[in-house]
Amino acid sequence: MNILLVHAHPEPRSLNGSLKRFIVDRLESQGHAVQVSDLYAMGWKATLDGADRLDREPDARFDPAMDSRHAFVHGTQSEDIAREQDKLRRADALILQFPLWWFSMPAILKGWVERVYANGFGYGVGEHSDARWGDRYGEGSLAGKRAMLVVTAGGWESHYGPRGINGPIDDLLFPIQHGILYYPGFDVLTPHVVYRTGKMDPARFAATCETLGRRLDTLFSTPPLPFRRQNGGDYAIPELGLRPELAPGRTGFGIHLADAQPASVLHVAQPGNEQGAEREQDRARRHEAQAAAHAEGLAQ
Amino acid sequence: MNILLVHAHPEPRSLNGSLKRFIVDRLESQGHAVQVSDLYAMGWKATLDGADRLDREPDARFDPAMDSRHAFVHGTQSEDIAREQDKLRRADALILQFPLWWFSMPAILKGWVERVYANGFGYGVGEHSDARWGDRYGEGSLAGKRAMLVVTAGGWESHYGPRGINGPIDDLLFPIQHGILYYPGFDVLTPHVVYRTGKMDPARFAATCETLGRRLDTLFSTPPLPFRRQNGGDYAIPELGLRPELAPGRTGFGIHLADAQPASVLHVAQPGNEQGAEREQDRARRHEAQAAAHAEGLAQ
Repeated sequence: MNILLVHAHPEPRSLNGSLKRFIVDRLESQGHAVQVSDLYAMGWKATLDGADRLDREPDARFDPAMDSRHAFVHGTQSEDIAREQDKLRRADALILQFPLWWFSMPAILKGWVERVYANGFGYGVGEHSDARWGDRYGEGSLAGKRAMLVVTAGGWESHYGPRGINGPIDDLLFPIQHGILYYPGFDVLTPHVVYRTGKMDPARFAATCETLGRRLDTLFSTPPLPFRRQNGGDYAIPELGLRPELAPGRTGFGIHLADAQPASVLHVAQPGNEQGAEREQDRARRHEAQAAAHAEGLAQ
Repeated sequence: MNILLVHAHPEPRSLNGSLKRFIVDRLESQGHAVQVSDLYAMGWKATLDGADRLDREPDARFDPAMDSRHAFVHGTQSEDIAREQDKLRRADALILQFPLWWFSMPAILKGWVERVYANGFGYGVGEHSDARWGDRYGEGSLAGKRAMLVVTAGGWESHYGPRGINGPIDDLLFPIQHGILYYPGFDVLTPHVVYRTGKMDPARFAATCETLGRRLDTLFSTPPLPFRRQNGGDYAIPELGLRPELAPGRTGFGIHLADAQPASVLHVAQPGNEQGAEREQDRARRHEAQAAAHAEGLAQ
């Protein structure tokens, strides 16, 4: 299989640098092809701006979403963006590897997401109707591919536990797992987190690689997290609240994971309005939905 | 009062650009002094790297936390970082204003946090003992100042509701509110969020400014969110789990807000071990704690 490893650490002689080399070696030893985007080494431009669309009129008002769409559709994207999209297209799986900085990914990796996830590629994909709100959350350009996070954290595992002061790690990573990976269609695996990095020694590093190695060996066989598909019937459209009979009375990130018996099989997608009879209201809603879907990524 | 507005949008002729001008005008009309860090206009360097420490040996192993500490302590930080820290020192309140991109802040603003929150300034502050885990979460260099987010989102408010598909907005913003603002000591206000930005028109913009204006007028009188202080007795040290008798049986981000009757008044900080009798174990723990506290920001 083909795997894209996006790595975000400034120092090769760091724990993250060592883990990167381990990941590449392990995957290649299993017969996989590995593409590496080492963002710091590449001098990746972290900031999304008007220069990302090569044919932009310099004095025109810059619209992050619309200029991105134009550049993606017309092939006038900055070359570095197009190259990363090609890597994603070729990949069967994506691994994002990074140190947790301020409870999220480093800015350079966030900028990779913002620029590579162009409008028309990472978001703003698919049609809007009474039964669909674009292709997202389980559908989209990257559907059929897998994704996994490999994250290091300085704090203790208990600090990231269910009642830990930093907040539970699964909740801290939800905006990435659900909002960045599941959104454009990836099947998302549980993250692999290494804690207490200040206490790393050769024995712990060996044990860390042992555990991580097992995750890599089962990259294509581990069941992904059962996030609920947006257009599978679990959500009311266009309000996009989880239907009241699912996870009744509960709120928060956790309800977007289906239970052991996926409640979504109880639903079928709602039929749209009669074919060919598009009313003014539907059209207006579709246009707004399209704008909103764009904006979810970048806008305003 | 003195207010620092950090603004992260590439286009002045955008909704966010208009909101920025409104915020500055409104605050100044109330007699406040406003400092503006318009990150795109400043050409802010988003990526933290070795160049941020001016006296670094070019071939030395770069340690994001330790090099940051050295540069902060010895006055060899990159000039742009020192300037932003000075703005923070002068400020009585901080406003971070940004469009929600991929359910978090734009990369350029994340990079502002990573670089300006130096080790010794934004984290890695204070002593570690049996009763303290450094000055953080309610204590720290920025204690006594207030902070508020002003955020725009393309999606509908219902998409960000308690059962909305994107996840509740308060949970999406928790890593910023609690992990970036409360961590170094800010008193944090509820965020001001503007939804459905694709449907903005003059009437809605006027209403938006009306509501936002009230938030600005009460910036210094609104009670902050009752996040629990780390060293106030609510958390067991060093595990840093919320004590079982507080929010019993509950988990997730919400438990880090005290209830109407703050349970923390029931606790007093645990006394340390006998004065002057520092045992080997304590010293080792303190050193590790210090490393971990550093790492919470940046490391590995």
